[in-house]
Amino acid sequence: MRAVLVQNGVRLERNAAEPSTHGDQALIRVRRAGICNTDLELVAGYMNFSGILGHEFVGEVIDGAPDLAGQRVVGEINVACGHCDFCQRGIPSQCRNRTTVGIDRHPGAFADYLALTRRNLHVVPDTVRDDQAVFVEPLAAALQIYEAVHLSPRDRVVLIGAGKLGMLVAQVVRLIGCDLVTVVRREKQARLLNAWGIPAVGEDEIEPLRADVVIDCTGTSEGFAQALKWVKARGTIVLKSTYTGIPQANLTQVAVNEIRIIGSRCGPFKSALRLLHMGLVDVESLIERRYPLDEAMNALKYAGQHGVLKVLLDI
Amino acid sequence: MRAVLVQNGVRLERNAAEPSTHGDQALIRVRRAGICNTDLELVAGYMNFSGILGHEFVGEVIDGAPDLAGQRVVGEINVACGHCDFCQRGIPSQCRNRTTVGIDRHPGAFADYLALTRRNLHVVPDTVRDDQAVFVEPLAAALQIYEAVHLSPRDRVVLIGAGKLGMLVAQVVRLIGCDLVTVVRREKQARLLNAWGIPAVGEDEIEPLRADVVIDCTGTSEGFAQALKWVKARGTIVLKSTYTGIPQANLTQVAVNEIRIIGSRCGPFKSALRLLHMGLVDVESLIERRYPLDEAMNALKYAGQHGVLKVLLDI
Repeated sequence: MRAVLVQNGVRLERNAAEPSTHGDQALIRVRRAGICNTDLELVAGYMNFSGILGHEFVGEVIDGAPDLAGQRVVGEINVACGHCDFCQRGIPSQCRNRTTVGIDRHPGAFADYLALTRRNLHVVPDTVRDDQAVFVEPLAAALQIYEAVHLSPRDRVVLIGAGKLGMLVAQVVRLIGCDLVTVVRREKQARLLNAWGIPAVGEDEIEPLRADVVIDCTGTSEGFAQALKWVKARGTIVLKSTYTGIPQANLTQVAVNEIRIIGSRCGPFKSALRLLHMGLVDVESLIERRYPLDEAMNALKYAGQHGVLKVLLDI
Repeated sequence: MRAVLVQNGVRLERNAAEPSTHGDQALIRVRRAGICNTDLELVAGYMNFSGILGHEFVGEVIDGAPDLAGQRVVGEINVACGHCDFCQRGIPSQCRNRTTVGIDRHPGAFADYLALTRRNLHVVPDTVRDDQAVFVEPLAAALQIYEAVHLSPRDRVVLIGAGKLGMLVAQVVRLIGCDLVTVVRREKQARLLNAWGIPAVGEDEIEPLRADVVIDCTGTSEGFAQALKWVKARGTIVLKSTYTGIPQANLTQVAVNEIRIIGSRCGPFKSALRLLHMGLVDVESLIERRYPLDEAMNALKYAGQHGVLKVLLDI
């Protein structure tokens, strides 16, 4: 089969071995996949990843998992052991022995086929198109902010980093009526945000030390220093950014101003599917281009340009 | 009057102007004062402080505040404006316009006399000796951990930095029966902790990624990296450390492991006084030496040596 393979660089491999299913795995024919910043980081060396790339996808079950035969599914990316303390506490996303689809010792979805444990799959309702379902993974990650932090409708929230993930986070945060502003450098993002009723402002328009919550979706090491400029004492910084490199961070200011910093990662797929079913979030406007899998190298190249939102692969 | 003055270095000034009280201020004759790591940082240039040093004290009201005449008092260090959003929310310790006794634009307590607003004063009950009352400020800061974090008796807690503040934090955390271990490098600290029933261990004895809560009282930039080694996913790091310099911090690990970081600063004086009144915390064992105010320079020098616990000034 065809697969986007990271192995001393990245290439489209046309004769990759088709996955064989074992245990409770389903075999999935991938229909559509999305390129995430993490994919670009992995290509650049993050996690020392080698294998098939890709973790945002929608596909069709063609073998295994008889209860799902022929159905469209999306898949959670953390493959958990089921036995460790986190699995026992019902937090498989933090399983101590997990592999992660397309990120850590588990083949990914930029390929014709993918084998994934039945437990991780969720059926996509007919009301949700492929172009929407492919956003379930990042939309769930955006929703995880509500699990990590008690957001209140009264909160003054600043979002920095209006990229692929940030544009989903902005939509999710506006749902409960927070006083949300998004820091934006690009006209395209500003237009979309305004269409959704979300103020898009420049950095200089944000008053220092006044935000109850600052959400860092920059994906860069500079995001945290900016967040510190805007968060008020006793306020909260939510970290959605991952990247290679370890930034400097003014932890004395964190102590003196009694700030809370909360890391947040993967989120609830079922809730994301409900939001898409109800039409509460506009994901399709984020699609900038689509490429067939055969042109995956061009797709990655295009997705890596500054300011580009979602690039899809049609498999 | 005599006063320890920071001004192009630090010196004992014998002819400092006595403070005049105005508004709701009380004039306090200082009886005893404690040297804190922050004092040593201020002498070394932290906050660009200049003025009279000292913020841990017990004294006697000799003028102003008629309801307190002749009484022994301790004083909260944040002098708040009473008008800003934090004051209105009942958080004067984070007042946007505050000055801070002996730290930021307010004369301190290493002096014969101190003028301080009546609002900040708390009467010391007769059951609490001067040598105990002088610990109310740092003991309140230790107690603030309970305000910042929901500690549970089931929590596995690791405390790093068994210094002046850490030895108080350890005693306060053990009060609800947490599974607490303290990382200790010095025999003296280990003996005291063991006497209080708190395990004192070496760094190598702590299992990585298993602590529910890690409390960083190191007062150094290395503390955070250690805390990250020990805290489990979804666990909490409490920052009690302040210092000059900005360390590197692996914020990607914070995001991926969904860690919470909580800064914590000044705490509740009344609660600290209750603990001392009830004899629940042993502060006097932390006193290493006492000096008369005339020998304050020697006191600061001695307090600055590694591993030294509390040094007091008898005024």
